[in-house]
Amino acid sequence: MSYEYIRYPVPLGADSIITFTTDFGLRDPYVAEMKGVILSGAPMVKLIDITHSIPPGDILACALTLERAVSCYPPGTIHLVVVDPGVGSERRPIAVISNSQIFVGPDNGFATLAINESDYKAYLIENVRAPSGRVSHTFHGRDIFAPACVHLARGGRLSDLGEEIEDIVKIDVRKPEVSVDEVKGEVIYVDHFGNLITNIREGDIKGLDRGRWLVRVGRKWIKGIRRYYSEVEEGDIIALIGSSGRLEIAVRGKNAEQVLGISPGNSVVVCRL
Amino acid sequence: MSYEYIRYPVPLGADSIITFTTDFGLRDPYVAEMKGVILSGAPMVKLIDITHSIPPGDILACALTLERAVSCYPPGTIHLVVVDPGVGSERRPIAVISNSQIFVGPDNGFATLAINESDYKAYLIENVRAPSGRVSHTFHGRDIFAPACVHLARGGRLSDLGEEIEDIVKIDVRKPEVSVDEVKGEVIYVDHFGNLITNIREGDIKGLDRGRWLVRVGRKWIKGIRRYYSEVEEGDIIALIGSSGRLEIAVRGKNAEQVLGISPGNSVVVCRL
Amino acid sequence: MSYEYIRYPVPLGADSIITFTTDFGLRDPYVAEMKGVILSGAPMVKLIDITHSIPPGDILACALTLERAVSCYPPGTIHLVVVDPGVGSERRPIAVISNSQIFVGPDNGFATLAINESDYKAYLIENVRAPSGRVSHTFHGRDIFAPACVHLARGGRLSDLGEEIEDIVKIDVRKPEVSVDEVKGEVIYVDHFGNLITNIREGDIKGLDRGRWLVRVGRKWIKGIRRYYSEVEEGDIIALIGSSGRLEIAVRGKNAEQVLGISPGNSVVVCRL
Repeated sequence: MSYEYIRYPVPLGADSIITFTTDFGLRDPYVAEMKGVILSGAPMVKLIDITHSIPPGDILACALTLERAVSCYPPGTIHLVVVDPGVGSERRPIAVISNSQIFVGPDNGFATLAINESDYKAYLIENVRAPSGRVSHTFHGRDIFAPACVHLARGGRLSDLGEEIEDIVKIDVRKPEVSVDEVKGEVIYVDHFGNLITNIREGDIKGLDRGRWLVRVGRKWIKGIRRYYSEVEEGDIIALIGSSGRLEIAVRGKNAEQVLGISPGNSVVVCRL
Repeated sequence: MSYEYIRYPVPLGADSIITFTTDFGLRDPYVAEMKGVILSGAPMVKLIDITHSIPPGDILACALTLERAVSCYPPGTIHLVVVDPGVGSERRPIAVISNSQIFVGPDNGFATLAINESDYKAYLIENVRAPSGRVSHTFHGRDIFAPACVHLARGGRLSDLGEEIEDIVKIDVRKPEVSVDEVKGEVIYVDHFGNLITNIREGDIKGLDRGRWLVRVGRKWIKGIRRYYSEVEEGDIIALIGSSGRLEIAVRGKNAEQVLGISPGNSVVVCRL
Repeated sequence: MSYEYIRYPVPLGADSIITFTTDFGLRDPYVAEMKGVILSGAPMVKLIDITHSIPPGDILACALTLERAVSCYPPGTIHLVVVDPGVGSERRPIAVISNSQIFVGPDNGFATLAINESDYKAYLIENVRAPSGRVSHTFHGRDIFAPACVHLARGGRLSDLGEEIEDIVKIDVRKPEVSVDEVKGEVIYVDHFGNLITNIREGDIKGLDRGRWLVRVGRKWIKGIRRYYSEVEEGDIIALIGSSGRLEIAVRGKNAEQVLGISPGNSVVVCRL
């Protein structure tokens, strides 16, 4: 029995979950077209939207979104991802399996943070048929990726999609500089509430003693790393370890991005008091 | 058999509906994380979004949204609600049953308008396990409320979640002043179309004779209370009883909030001609 | 057996798909109210959102959206459509079957581009009961159209809804002027990415030889019709046949509507080099 099956605690069968992550927005029928193709071929799947509001073409935002979301999903879940500025060009359509979940989308690095870097298998998608019989050069989501998901949700093998490949594109996510008494990182994502999420993980701040650190963001110094928002007063700045295990900067009850004028790329430094 | 079961015309079983109402927006993976946790534990539930666009921390808007929506759902529905500015602090996580529907969320009054004020039972949520084994202090939606929904959707008892409590937080929704020939209320919600929804209910306008009333909003006087938008010309102001049974002010084919410069808190008076 | 059944390759049964297309936005509980009504009566249906972001009252945008989406859905799908500026007035609620799919909504032309113009059957919706027992004059989506969908999803007959009618409202979608060496059309839709979609179809450009045509939009001339975005440099204008088979104008990696200052109604001309 091939490797691509044996790690499945649950079979990839009729009741698979397929998630959607795109930069398509919610105004146009594009997402619904992909869902229609999938339901036409695999009527019993559960369809879940992760988000359709990735900034157009922003593969890093997509990778960060998937990093968070996929850990909550059960083995066998298929993640359809279409943030695809290179659609129609020579960039390859791929399916990747890692941690018993499958990622289907363009080979542009979107899954970099969601897969196990040293334990995955990847396949080209070569053998699917567009529902209309003709592949659009601008909408592989509907004509290549959705049909590939149908194949997988019906229990089809990854290796039937196409040739196994060794190399897939990975994106470079800058890591913080960690020294004995200082961690230099940056803001990498701003969420709906305006909270500033950094590339500094809890583990980067060695021997963390929350009261004894200073966090600098822009020109502001924040004393201590807290646990939850209401530890400070309305309108005060706070640094805490967020729900993804990363250092976050927030302003209680307000939008930190707007209040502080900080955005992705701005540096964040944690140092000893 | 305990009280918490006997009112169920349908069993709270594998095919439960779980609805979502949050202020998380649609950009981040937060909603999808909660859905993943739920589907991992209760794969057969139906997941329905009520809205994720409650203004951040606006518990009144949340309560008004739920008031409308829940009456359309069948007995046994579980409503997961995360508008939670006090997350991580001493505010309590609770589950409330009323009218054979269950509400799961923070004890901040979100369900005030959706439950039967004098007939509900409430429980603390103390005995759930976060999927990662560790509860984030900033995301109880994923780590406490979603696991509680899994427990309930699998047929678990409310009383297994934690201690029954008598007192839950309720919010104060200002009621209109009703006299023999005048009702003084205010705008409490503005919808997507810009329609101004008031706290005046149809029943507040005693002996309603639609042609014989005047409605004042801002500096405008509107003659009569109509039934539907096309009773007036494009661009005209109209007062009518909306689909929730409340008095609404609209401008036909236009956005009344923008045209009239009226927003929540502005007074609305109905008086005899 | 009546005509309204015999074209169904799959029965309209408990596992029907019901799609939603509205101008309700995602902020208010209106969509969730309709879904609650449907799940209360037909718990096994699959609910799919096409979009809720049709510009308020824009029936052309709605028709264009449906034209694209419905071709991806299987026979038996029910499309609930509520873009309904005339709600409550004398405009009629209807159900239309064409190409083995059903459209439920107001008789205002929304389905013009989605049905087969010369092969459909249409029925008034007269015999449904609002869940509350009383039909709101401003929310037929919840009180008339959703109950009609429940009836159909449970296998009910179209003819039980009401009288068959011959004439339904159709909207007039301007067609391009096609001559031997020139096609004059216009922009009819702008998508989330800012791509300008025209009323010129691939078939309108006879004997298409991609390199040998000039496309004029505003004051810009574009040489040739391409296949995919990355055929040109970042920031360059490109004309191509989009995934719906229509001529589209885009700016690679940018928002063409903003960059070019072009919007629906602006003319687009294709002529020989």
